Amino acid sequence: MISHPNFEIQPWSVAETSLNLDVLAQSESVFALSNGHIGLRGNLDEGEPHGLPGTYLNSVYEERPLPFAEAGYGDPDSGQTIINVTNGKLIRLLVDDEPFDVRYGICHDHRRCLDLRAGVLTRSVRWSSPASKVVEVHSTRLVSFTHRAVAAIRYEVKATDRPLRVVAQSELVANETLPSGDGDPRASAVLDSPLVGVESLAAGKKALLVHRTRKSGLLVGAGMDHEVEGPQATNMQSEAFSDVARLTVAAELEPGESLVLVKYLAYGWSSQRSRPGVHDQVMAALAAARLTGWDGLVRAQRRFLDEYWATAEVEVDGDPEVEQAVRFGLFHILQAGARAERRPMPAKGLTGPGYDGHAFWDTETFVLPVLTYTRPEVAADVLRWRASVLSEAVERAAGRLDLAGAGFPWRTISGVGSSGYWPAGAAAVHVNADIAGAALQYLDATQDDSFETEVALPLLVGTARFWASLGYYGPDGRFHIDGVTGPDEYSALADDNVYTNLGAKKNLAAAAELCARHADQALELDVSDEERGTWTKAAQQMAIPFDTRLGVHPQAHRFTEQQTWDFASTREDQYPLMLHFPYLELYRKQVVKQADLVLAMQLHPDEFTDEQKAANFAYYEAITVRDSSLSASTQAVIAAEVGHLDLAYDYLGEAALMDLKDLEHNTRDGLHMAALAGAWTVLVVGFGRMRPVDGRLRFSPRLPAGISRIAFRICYRDRRLQVEIHPRQAIYRLISGQPLEVSHHGQSFELASEAVVLPIPDGLVSREPSPRQPAGRAPVHRLKDREADIDGSGERGESERC
Amino acid sequence: MISHPNFEIQPWSVAETSLNLDVLAQSESVFALSNGHIGLRGNLDEGEPHGLPGTYLNSVYEERPLPFAEAGYGDPDSGQTIINVTNGKLIRLLVDDEPFDVRYGICHDHRRCLDLRAGVLTRSVRWSSPASKVVEVHSTRLVSFTHRAVAAIRYEVKATDRPLRVVAQSELVANETLPSGDGDPRASAVLDSPLVGVESLAAGKKALLVHRTRKSGLLVGAGMDHEVEGPQATNMQSEAFSDVARLTVAAELEPGESLVLVKYLAYGWSSQRSRPGVHDQVMAALAAARLTGWDGLVRAQRRFLDEYWATAEVEVDGDPEVEQAVRFGLFHILQAGARAERRPMPAKGLTGPGYDGHAFWDTETFVLPVLTYTRPEVAADVLRWRASVLSEAVERAAGRLDLAGAGFPWRTISGVGSSGYWPAGAAAVHVNADIAGAALQYLDATQDDSFETEVALPLLVGTARFWASLGYYGPDGRFHIDGVTGPDEYSALADDNVYTNLGAKKNLAAAAELCARHADQALELDVSDEERGTWTKAAQQMAIPFDTRLGVHPQAHRFTEQQTWDFASTREDQYPLMLHFPYLELYRKQVVKQADLVLAMQLHPDEFTDEQKAANFAYYEAITVRDSSLSASTQAVIAAEVGHLDLAYDYLGEAALMDLKDLEHNTRDGLHMAALAGAWTVLVVGFGRMRPVDGRLRFSPRLPAGISRIAFRICYRDRRLQVEIHPRQAIYRLISGQPLEVSHHGQSFELASEAVVLPIPDGLVSREPSPRQPAGRAPVHRLKDREADIDGSGERGESERC
Repeated sequence: MISHPNFEIQPWSVAETSLNLDVLAQSESVFALSNGHIGLRGNLDEGEPHGLPGTYLNSVYEERPLPFAEAGYGDPDSGQTIINVTNGKLIRLLVDDEPFDVRYGICHDHRRCLDLRAGVLTRSVRWSSPASKVVEVHSTRLVSFTHRAVAAIRYEVKATDRPLRVVAQSELVANETLPSGDGDPRASAVLDSPLVGVESLAAGKKALLVHRTRKSGLLVGAGMDHEVEGPQATNMQSEAFSDVARLTVAAELEPGESLVLVKYLAYGWSSQRSRPGVHDQVMAALAAARLTGWDGLVRAQRRFLDEYWATAEVEVDGDPEVEQAVRFGLFHILQAGARAERRPMPAKGLTGPGYDGHAFWDTETFVLPVLTYTRPEVAADVLRWRASVLSEAVERAAGRLDLAGAGFPWRTISGVGSSGYWPAGAAAVHVNADIAGAALQYLDATQDDSFETEVALPLLVGTARFWASLGYYGPDGRFHIDGVTGPDEYSALADDNVYTNLGAKKNLAAAAELCARHADQALELDVSDEERGTWTKAAQQMAIPFDTRLGVHPQAHRFTEQQTWDFASTREDQYPLMLHFPYLELYRKQVVKQADLVLAMQLHPDEFTDEQKAANFAYYEAITVRDSSLSASTQAVIAAEVGHLDLAYDYLGEAALMDLKDLEHNTRDGLHMAALAGAWTVLVVGFGRMRPVDGRLRFSPRLPAGISRIAFRICYRDRRLQVEIHPRQAIYRLISGQPLEVSHHGQSFELASEAVVLPIPDGLVSREPSPRQPAGRAPVHRLKDREADIDGSGERGESERC
Repeated sequence: MISHPNFEIQPWSVAETSLNLDVLAQSESVFALSNGHIGLRGNLDEGEPHGLPGTYLNSVYEERPLPFAEAGYGDPDSGQTIINVTNGKLIRLLVDDEPFDVRYGICHDHRRCLDLRAGVLTRSVRWSSPASKVVEVHSTRLVSFTHRAVAAIRYEVKATDRPLRVVAQSELVANETLPSGDGDPRASAVLDSPLVGVESLAAGKKALLVHRTRKSGLLVGAGMDHEVEGPQATNMQSEAFSDVARLTVAAELEPGESLVLVKYLAYGWSSQRSRPGVHDQVMAALAAARLTGWDGLVRAQRRFLDEYWATAEVEVDGDPEVEQAVRFGLFHILQAGARAERRPMPAKGLTGPGYDGHAFWDTETFVLPVLTYTRPEVAADVLRWRASVLSEAVERAAGRLDLAGAGFPWRTISGVGSSGYWPAGAAAVHVNADIAGAALQYLDATQDDSFETEVALPLLVGTARFWASLGYYGPDGRFHIDGVTGPDEYSALADDNVYTNLGAKKNLAAAAELCARHADQALELDVSDEERGTWTKAAQQMAIPFDTRLGVHPQAHRFTEQQTWDFASTREDQYPLMLHFPYLELYRKQVVKQADLVLAMQLHPDEFTDEQKAANFAYYEAITVRDSSLSASTQAVIAAEVGHLDLAYDYLGEAALMDLKDLEHNTRDGLHMAALAGAWTVLVVGFGRMRPVDGRLRFSPRLPAGISRIAFRICYRDRRLQVEIHPRQAIYRLISGQPLEVSHHGQSFELASEAVVLPIPDGLVSREPSPRQPAGRAPVHRLKDREADIDGSGERGESERC
């Protein structure tokens, strides 16, 4: 766990003021750079020491056999695993005769800083070699948002008090040795040498390596070019072998003199193009990067981010740490998707190999809502990727599940299923409703017509067909969906999971509506009026179990009658429970890993009365252990909804600081994109209570005691809005676009050029006592936590330094 | 599939009249010999061709890693697999210069015959070599019931019309190459060379090989000794290497002259004893065998079987094929257990490697009831084995399941769990009730006092504790058991599976009673009065769901409300369903692999009214596909119970002929012991309607139209009885022992030396139409099947020839 305070609290950056090798892997995830296409973990320039070396290209994976002790029909034959591709970040340095290595000599100062507005990672270090030679190294690294295939590094070595002979070796290295896994199922499979050399080339300051993956058969090219500034006598030499290419730069530096390398990196890959094609694509990207130049790349990066923040900026007065964390989250979400361009957005983005680099339901459920309102074209791209793998989903449904329509896999890179444990994989069919729901939300927020017919319609039709073939009418005349697994992975194969059924209901109804609206296109998809009718009916008759005895919704049939987990006897070191108890025990008891029914209330607020929401929330709070990072934000949203604002604030802290404080102890494997996105959702949907209804935006904002003001921006139907929430009033501003109908605590008004200030009614806080969590599983009390930080050594950095 | 009529229908033997190489593996299972300690598949003497070479020693297994694509807490680290030990059956023969091999030359006649009363497998063949040399070979093989460690072969080669030079090589061969598996999960893992040579020795006509298994570390010794009778000039030579030992006998035979080898084989193994210990144990067994001599072994074998048949004989007039099959089954059940002596009885006995040689619940549920009434000491031995691995079950419950008491593994050899798919493994906890139930049945039938306190009490206490910790009181005040899997493997992780709950109920109640009866011993097991009280209460309050809408018991909660499988659209080649449909689909629909609720009615007849039995049976008939060999006999018993006697007769045919007709297409991997045992149960419990009640035996016999008389024998509380069922009367005879109270169709009488003849009432046949099975899944109509056989080429052998 990253022990606080490792990172300075600054509004627009995340800075580490000393190097702690024990948490190197975690900081590599925090400092990862990506544009959604290329991902570079925040490994030190010189490669060693490292926590987990990582260079990723979206959708570059290798296949590995998935073993089954007792195989069942439909189990996937092989799994996909993201691979560490050719590492181009490497710049090794020899200082006189000593390799620059922070583990030896003395590291006088080491600072790394991720600048959320500049989009660069900087590092500066002053280091004495074991032979007491002092050198300063300053590096700046970026993965370009504007040049999709390009990353670049400016690397400066400076002699201080004495002349120095320095040699920099700028490299491309394939098939790096990776640390072996620790058996945590949430980590990734480690493949040895997944890349087979196909081409290597060095010419002048340029070099290129092309490799092929053994089984998935993907060609991967990595190239580098350099600009070198140094003393006259600087000497250069390049070479290339199968798994390594190298530019060696040697120079004698007088005190105060520097050697500066600008390293341009380009990546390309293809499952179809030829080696010369990939070669040329990489070289062309390098040429474009050199044309733009380092300064140009840096300027373009900032312009790109300025534009982003203009639509996405969030302010949280009174809690600078959460403010920083939410912006950190927004930055990483943008990084995960900005240039993914019809490729998946993995659960960890491209920040680490966790979960084998797979994309799950959480991108659609947690991340896309944020992007939909802050950078809608990115959300569209992810959904276009889903549409592009629709045929795989149809094949999977027919071939492996014996169902009609589209059955998207639980976890995948290429669109093909990769789950090794079907009760929490193939059975988690709610992913289909999650995809449909994300498409519907995007449609509502953008009214994007071409998306509606090209993407939403086929996705909705495919998934509606899936639900129609999965469910059935029971003797009660209701449409039931049995034997599936909802979001809570401590239950499985249950009947009528409310989350799943409500998602399916929405999916079916919306598919029928869309088809009615686009009769011609629907006909092309062979949707008859009769089929539409079956969807409408299934949606209307969808079974939603309710426990009248307790007055709450069971997560699934019989759930609320089952035995309750013995929380009192469960020790703190037995969490997460799945690493200490068998599924046989977890599944048959009332214990919730992550919000399930409570998430259903967030996504389908109109399906529950206020009374049900309060009762359900209290009920599930008592049995939810949050052994997943996907829970806190949802609990926060509903806590706020039912008036437990302080509890919502506590959960906000947990969601927002998930990675900066490594609360799940596995930030090393990559960041928790959904949790980071969830923090934004707590502010906007939880405290702002934003809800789009029939083309209007409804807000019912209120603040918890710990925050004095929240301001956020929203893109909605070609408008940009800002909402400012103060304790006793809210201020609505239209930043751009046509006037829009908005409501505030039930009061409608037209928001035009004039800011609108409206009072926040009193009495919105629940009079009920705050619900109790299982023993030891209450969230950290955010206000107390902040006080402890301030009393302690919590650093507050200067506001603009990076 | 063995195509009928491969085997002659004879009352006391199973004879094959020609060699069909396509079904060699199946016939090797049918002709397997065993005494429960040693198992020899019916491989040809000369080793080749073979279907599946197999020599097994009960509990000699190797460990293999169990791989999990996504491991869960508590998954077993490794699995156990029965191994093919040193093959001592081999006698290769050279005829002049040609190896005797039925694939070459001409096989004029080939007859193999399993004699069910002699307990020997005979073979005779007349063969012309490619060079037209004619030889006759006669062999007789036995695995001794009286010498536990000994098998023996009498092998005779005879020259016919011309002088011949013959060389017989009698061998011990370790690490035979086995055919690789076909991926059927019901087959076994194939391990290459599991044996490591430790000692090899040849001296005179004796030889010995000792090996050690690599991971499980068991020492396995195999020895042979010979008696040779041949012409004067017979020459002999022996040699031994690590994996082979050989006695070579060469002779010149004049026409009509024979070379006779008697080969004594002895096996020994140990996990603890030293190599010299195992060496001596094998050599001593050989010495004992030679002392007894071939004729002595043969005589003892017949005496042993005479005694068995005196208590176990069954006659089925009117259906000689079923009569033969039931006797064949009884013979193999005896073979599987006779000398197992506190070792497990695998699902396939020692007839093949299917299911990795594991013992499951079916031994207790299907096989032990038969042995309890025919050879009770064998049933006791199997249960004593369970008691001997009680501590492993307690460890497993605590360490892997987080439960109290004893949690016996679903499949095992040594007592340690070996299941690679927990929803149909660890979750199938009913095995504990099955073990308890078998112990209770044995106790009732024998009143074996030492067993009661030494075996039954600890077994019952351990399993009662398991149930008490597994279940809980729901809001309805009932004791519920959630999230477990019953016998039907097309459902899993269901709540309140009736079969499981009724088994647990009986288990808990009986444990409480036993503890009350044996207060001191109970105290030694730390059973307090309070704990006893919790068992009694849980048993009394056990939840048994009932569907009032349909008037039937759901197999588990909600089962009868779920979607029904689309049988009409399921093609015949899609059975067994588990090889063609995912569990995701099977589990959430009403489709039953094998009797589950119907088996509950067989084992707990007093828990259901007659009306419920009829309604339940009809309901489950319509959705039961019998993709398991464990189903037909149960369906037969309940069909008979509710008066569908012809249907019961059809199912009897299926259960009885499971292996002789290879109905499940996997007899090659070993015989289906439970199905074979089930055929006896159909006769005695189905048509005889035998039920022990409070120390009396109740019968309510009736015959189906296809059978004119059934006679069976029963051991009960030191008596031997014979029951003869005719269409209109039944005859009861006490063969030995004190008078006993018996009832016939509700009429009690004392059965003493005098036979009692009682009429069978009319009107016992149900007036309801016979229930329907799923399309295409009706059992073969037994009467029509018989007629077809008789019309066709069905052979009727001479009654006494083998």
